[in-house]
Amino acid sequence: MNSENEMDKRIIVFGGDGFCGWPTSLYLSRHGYEVVIVDNLSRRKIDIELGCQSLTPITDVYARIKTWEQVSGKKIQFELIDISDHYHRIYSLIKEFKPAAVIHFAEQRAAPYSMKSAFHKRYTVNNNLNATHNILCAIVESGLDVHLIHLGTTGVYGYGDAGMEIPEGYLKAKVDIDGKEKEIEILYPANPGSIYHMTKTQDALFFFYYNKNNSVRITDLHQGIVWGTNTEETILANELINRFDYDGDYGTVLTRFLMQAAVEHPLTIHGTGGQTRAFIHIKDTVKCIRLAIENPPAKGDRVKIFNQATETHTVKDLAKKISAMTGASLRFYKNPRNEDSNNGLKIANKKFLELGLKPITINKGLMSEIHDIAKKYKDRCDIEKIICTSTWREDIQVDYIGSSKNVFESN
Amino acid sequence: MNSENEMDKRIIVFGGDGFCGWPTSLYLSRHGYEVVIVDNLSRRKIDIELGCQSLTPITDVYARIKTWEQVSGKKIQFELIDISDHYHRIYSLIKEFKPAAVIHFAEQRAAPYSMKSAFHKRYTVNNNLNATHNILCAIVESGLDVHLIHLGTTGVYGYGDAGMEIPEGYLKAKVDIDGKEKEIEILYPANPGSIYHMTKTQDALFFFYYNKNNSVRITDLHQGIVWGTNTEETILANELINRFDYDGDYGTVLTRFLMQAAVEHPLTIHGTGGQTRAFIHIKDTVKCIRLAIENPPAKGDRVKIFNQATETHTVKDLAKKISAMTGASLRFYKNPRNEDSNNGLKIANKKFLELGLKPITINKGLMSEIHDIAKKYKDRCDIEKIICTSTWREDIQVDYIGSSKNVFESN
Repeated sequence: MNSENEMDKRIIVFGGDGFCGWPTSLYLSRHGYEVVIVDNLSRRKIDIELGCQSLTPITDVYARIKTWEQVSGKKIQFELIDISDHYHRIYSLIKEFKPAAVIHFAEQRAAPYSMKSAFHKRYTVNNNLNATHNILCAIVESGLDVHLIHLGTTGVYGYGDAGMEIPEGYLKAKVDIDGKEKEIEILYPANPGSIYHMTKTQDALFFFYYNKNNSVRITDLHQGIVWGTNTEETILANELINRFDYDGDYGTVLTRFLMQAAVEHPLTIHGTGGQTRAFIHIKDTVKCIRLAIENPPAKGDRVKIFNQATETHTVKDLAKKISAMTGASLRFYKNPRNEDSNNGLKIANKKFLELGLKPITINKGLMSEIHDIAKKYKDRCDIEKIICTSTWREDIQVDYIGSSKNVFESN
Repeated sequence: MNSENEMDKRIIVFGGDGFCGWPTSLYLSRHGYEVVIVDNLSRRKIDIELGCQSLTPITDVYARIKTWEQVSGKKIQFELIDISDHYHRIYSLIKEFKPAAVIHFAEQRAAPYSMKSAFHKRYTVNNNLNATHNILCAIVESGLDVHLIHLGTTGVYGYGDAGMEIPEGYLKAKVDIDGKEKEIEILYPANPGSIYHMTKTQDALFFFYYNKNNSVRITDLHQGIVWGTNTEETILANELINRFDYDGDYGTVLTRFLMQAAVEHPLTIHGTGGQTRAFIHIKDTVKCIRLAIENPPAKGDRVKIFNQATETHTVKDLAKKISAMTGASLRFYKNPRNEDSNNGLKIANKKFLELGLKPITINKGLMSEIHDIAKKYKDRCDIEKIICTSTWREDIQVDYIGSSKNVFESN
């Protein structure tokens, strides 16, 4: 390997201690990348704020990294930096380490948390926007050709029913230009459904601008809900285990249902359950990141956008699957989110499949999550954290509506 | 006047000490509004940073307000608050003062300043985005129905040639939805030309989201370049005089040409001068703000967008006009901005005209600016501040290209 190739293998993972960042860091490290994790450990501190913790017993970041070195023989460097604030440390790191690519997971990523109060809205906006901008600014100031890979969300397209298969980032539209119809291609119109999602649509404008003005090479991954806990790397030792969030703020619909089934709590369906969500397994997330690193846009190309989601399901159908596997009952609550009660979300996702991704499906992978994670660690569950308390507006309450044994007929 | 009407007259002007904010505050005060100015005086502090000052001898904010009270008999309250930071002071002010509307001028508003360095980029992003978000957050948290009027820019549409008359905020487009063509109306696709302009496109997403989720009533004014110095109110006493910026960062193409002509410096044309810009006189700006206050969107309506510009001119045509009036020669420099060398910007602006606005034209108003401002105060000009030093990319320099006596033939 010559020095040029070695430089191609240098990666910074911003937010590398988090749910997606940690397994991505290990996966890249295992596959020959030289990884630096940058993290301010904010997700662990939010656990303290919420009086909650990962269902899985994660170890501290230093123990994780030390264990990885023992298990794999590979070193990962860790830098404790708040990238929303400590600009000059990011700049120096990029300037000195000269990464080929940086992966940007370092944003507050829970929609319910972003809606809890004015404090949480303001924290999410300030943290996410300054974090993204500081990375871009540092790349430009470094004068280096660094590829930025950002973890976005399918939520930028809106919760509602688009009536079409949502394309990968760009929409073709015909507009009237002085009497003549002309086809243009635009960023798919942003339609954020929460403060968190709003910051991701604003990130897209950072990317659009820095790509246009400074030719920064950028890949934006519009990711679905990530499920699954462990990867081939995190399973190698107990100390490497990944997070599993089941609470009302950071838990996703799938992790929450799994946990609820394990502790014999009825599955908490918000609204009618007719909302469709997009999903991807964590093992596929880490593969997608590597595919993004290895298939960068050319210098001068526009922002490359992938939809990083492998299947869609309605909330009700997920509940049905998990109920069938575990015998859990169902309970309906008013939806705390301000969204359509039903939608038929369809997401184009050819680009990663064409690059060779072979997705893990919920049908095949759910049982292992139930047995190896939810049931195994159920004694660590704090059942008081199960109900979602964060609502989208003051006039919305998460009231209990009713339970139904024959919901599959009635809904 | 009953108490409900009195409440309708309460206005907060964020950024009320600035170039647009000050005359707006006086105009509203004169016309029966109860005005509170909120300002962190950042624009005056940036003068210190740049070693520059307004050509006109502006007095400090306290002297201004005191003079206004003596001249008009009307009180204006002043609050020194950094709204990008001191959230709880904004919240308390809104909660207690209960304004009918708030006007938001409180953003860093110079494109060249926003491009000077990583520091200036980061300052502009952090200041502008947190300022806008804090106002919205405080309105929602107050539980009051406050109309937000924001000063945006025609620059959100892009510097380039759209090939069409740019509509007031929303664009009709036909898209293919599962094989059927359907007309949708979307926010005009954002195309920011600088970090400053980028923050305004991101503001639009704040507005879109808070309007959708919380039904906040919002008017976004996409304003052209404001010219003219005094209004009917600022002319009433020397101590009330408005700012006039001629330097390379805060001066506009028009104020810079006027100043250059007054001190017998050649007019500094960037690029070919074929760039078209949109303009509005400061006296019309203050009238537009009042029209926006008096014509709010109904509760539940989408964000109301006006193009607040009354005419367009190419840079070269402006130079030609001023040269004809003053005998100034012309000098061409490489364009520090990353933009098309020529564009035929056309902006729809019916909405304010239909509400009764009768614009002041450049053809009629320029001579008074030359005599009453530029020539009168020319001894205060620091000619070292005339040349623009801020560039859009490291590889762009503001080099002198040449002068031309017969530019109108050759270009």
